[in-house]
Amino acid sequence: MTDERTLRTAEAAAACGADWAILTAPDSVYYAAQVDTIIETGTSAFAGGPLLAIVGRDGTVGVVANNIDEAAARQSPADHVSVYKGLDLRDRTLVETRFRAAMEDALTTLGVGGVVAVQAGSLPWVVADALETRGATLVEIDDELTRQRMTKTADEIERLRWCAHLTDLGQAACLAAVRSGRTELEVWAEVRLAMEAEEGARLPVAGDLTSGIENTFHVGGFPTGREIREGDPIICDLAPRARGYWGDSCNTLVVGEPPPGFDTLYRASEAAVQTAVEQLRPGITMGELDTLLRDAVEQHGAVNLIHNGHGIGTGPHESPRVVPGEPAMIREGMVLMLEPGAYAPGVGGVRLEWMYLVTATGNEVMSGFPHVQSLAGARAAT
Amino acid sequence: MTDERTLRTAEAAAACGADWAILTAPDSVYYAAQVDTIIETGTSAFAGGPLLAIVGRDGTVGVVANNIDEAAARQSPADHVSVYKGLDLRDRTLVETRFRAAMEDALTTLGVGGVVAVQAGSLPWVVADALETRGATLVEIDDELTRQRMTKTADEIERLRWCAHLTDLGQAACLAAVRSGRTELEVWAEVRLAMEAEEGARLPVAGDLTSGIENTFHVGGFPTGREIREGDPIICDLAPRARGYWGDSCNTLVVGEPPPGFDTLYRASEAAVQTAVEQLRPGITMGELDTLLRDAVEQHGAVNLIHNGHGIGTGPHESPRVVPGEPAMIREGMVLMLEPGAYAPGVGGVRLEWMYLVTATGNEVMSGFPHVQSLAGARAAT
Repeated sequence: MTDERTLRTAEAAAACGADWAILTAPDSVYYAAQVDTIIETGTSAFAGGPLLAIVGRDGTVGVVANNIDEAAARQSPADHVSVYKGLDLRDRTLVETRFRAAMEDALTTLGVGGVVAVQAGSLPWVVADALETRGATLVEIDDELTRQRMTKTADEIERLRWCAHLTDLGQAACLAAVRSGRTELEVWAEVRLAMEAEEGARLPVAGDLTSGIENTFHVGGFPTGREIREGDPIICDLAPRARGYWGDSCNTLVVGEPPPGFDTLYRASEAAVQTAVEQLRPGITMGELDTLLRDAVEQHGAVNLIHNGHGIGTGPHESPRVVPGEPAMIREGMVLMLEPGAYAPGVGGVRLEWMYLVTATGNEVMSGFPHVQSLAGARAAT
Repeated sequence: MTDERTLRTAEAAAACGADWAILTAPDSVYYAAQVDTIIETGTSAFAGGPLLAIVGRDGTVGVVANNIDEAAARQSPADHVSVYKGLDLRDRTLVETRFRAAMEDALTTLGVGGVVAVQAGSLPWVVADALETRGATLVEIDDELTRQRMTKTADEIERLRWCAHLTDLGQAACLAAVRSGRTELEVWAEVRLAMEAEEGARLPVAGDLTSGIENTFHVGGFPTGREIREGDPIICDLAPRARGYWGDSCNTLVVGEPPPGFDTLYRASEAAVQTAVEQLRPGITMGELDTLLRDAVEQHGAVNLIHNGHGIGTGPHESPRVVPGEPAMIREGMVLMLEPGAYAPGVGGVRLEWMYLVTATGNEVMSGFPHVQSLAGARAAT
């Protein structure tokens, strides 16, 4: 049975008037063909081009992979897998040449031609050239594919639930690890290990771990050697990627006494979280939701400088976004990260983010960690 | 003064008969324009295309960057920087559209046209299409650029020396962290933190941390939840990326008594390291060096299943490779990773890798950590 995500990819191609779709961004490749590749060490030195997913209007799937990704490709539902050697002791041809041969093999075997929907920002020229040489016409798929990906399938919701669980452990590890005199990187190492130990594997982790009034006011940043001190706010925004999907989460802690004015920011953010829990449901637009959350913060005399949230899936930030004026309607089956916050110069920043599943009548909070301002209070409670 | 790497990029373009070069793979972008981007969380959700470096025959440099990479782009020697917003609260246009506008602006401002040398495996179709619309002819630069990158500039050597220093600390942390009952991931967290603490920042780290007879026989792998046990060989191959350049290194340890036959593998690899130190010099080919190292291992009755080494720079594996028959001549100013090893089924694997700078008459070992088989012996010695 063809995976629902593959069928939606085929539908996106059809909506573009295309006979085929070729996906080249890793998040779209995973979505279309459920084949994963290592993303956390950059472009592989053993790849002559990206991992390619080719999807036909009828749901046929082809994959072009180097030998490092071969096992993942063979385990996927792909009907045809073309593999080239990324690293070989005896073969001294250019890896680009070997990629090209495998790609041409896949195009020929599957009979790719006619109108082909592609990702303009990542489709390599070598593939575009091969398609044009075959007389194909290229059109762009991103807009339609984005639309298809906005609601999640049951399988996706389970994967996202697992990622939320990983962030619960990461946030608990952060609570346990933070103390005056440790560096952000020391805390980060324990947070990351907590999530990786649960997964039993290395995980790419995006997000922020940043401390101090100035840094938290500036919303985020990767951890550094900065030493955490008494009175520091700490924003811990964790976005691990596991089994092709991303999690996300944010907590804000204070070591010791909060700086003057910080309580206001915290209460404003908490009020917006409460509003989210009460108001997130199908039938209102993302823009309306943004207004509700922004107003909740402003009613406490604070201001949120950034967006209030976004979709999540095989990408860490997906459509629709929770921003002013966004007309996309909230629908059942969407999984949204809502991250209302409040930021003030000289005071710092607070951001409280959970993962929410939109249900038929309201929502379910998928994250399982508590938002806690006081570290001492949180530790006393556990 | 134009950076030597930029001039070499321009030379590579000239060798292809091109007026301009456009670089799109992050390692080449860094090489050509010294602008860095985050690679360890995959393709950015806030990018409409890759960070672009545009280099003219005369050494003019243009960069197209999203606002996250803007600071790095402004600090670089680029003559022209086109920036687009990757994430904006109010702008709801597609990020791809904003990338396209910035890219068109750069092409127009710089007057890019004629013959343009590109990276076929990573140049996005949207850029190829814009160039072709301007009447440009595209040719491939990778082969010529690879040739230019084989020897390193003085600045590159200093950066690689720093990366070697980071691996020294990582290998020392591994020696200190390994013990029976700990998982590979627990050791990995300490190894990674040792390198990140020195850098004061998160680092992408490629390589292997794998334990046990079966896993080390299979050369490598990312760390897992596997518990390290008495008698386990451990391969620790660390490749961190810092300030645009990669380090690399490999040590092999045994917890407690080595498995039967393991000493032979270790002595064979050590003999090959000794051969490398004595024989690596300008004027022989990479293939001849490969034979020398392979023979040293085989004279001890063992066999190396993989390559004996590779170049390193802004990419973790660069040309030339130390493989059978490779005709590239060893030249002064090359920085090579040599990683002779020996692998036997039922016994395990050993790999001993250092970074070497080829000098006028021989070589200098840039790595500063010792290869140590016995953990107990190594700890007694420190």
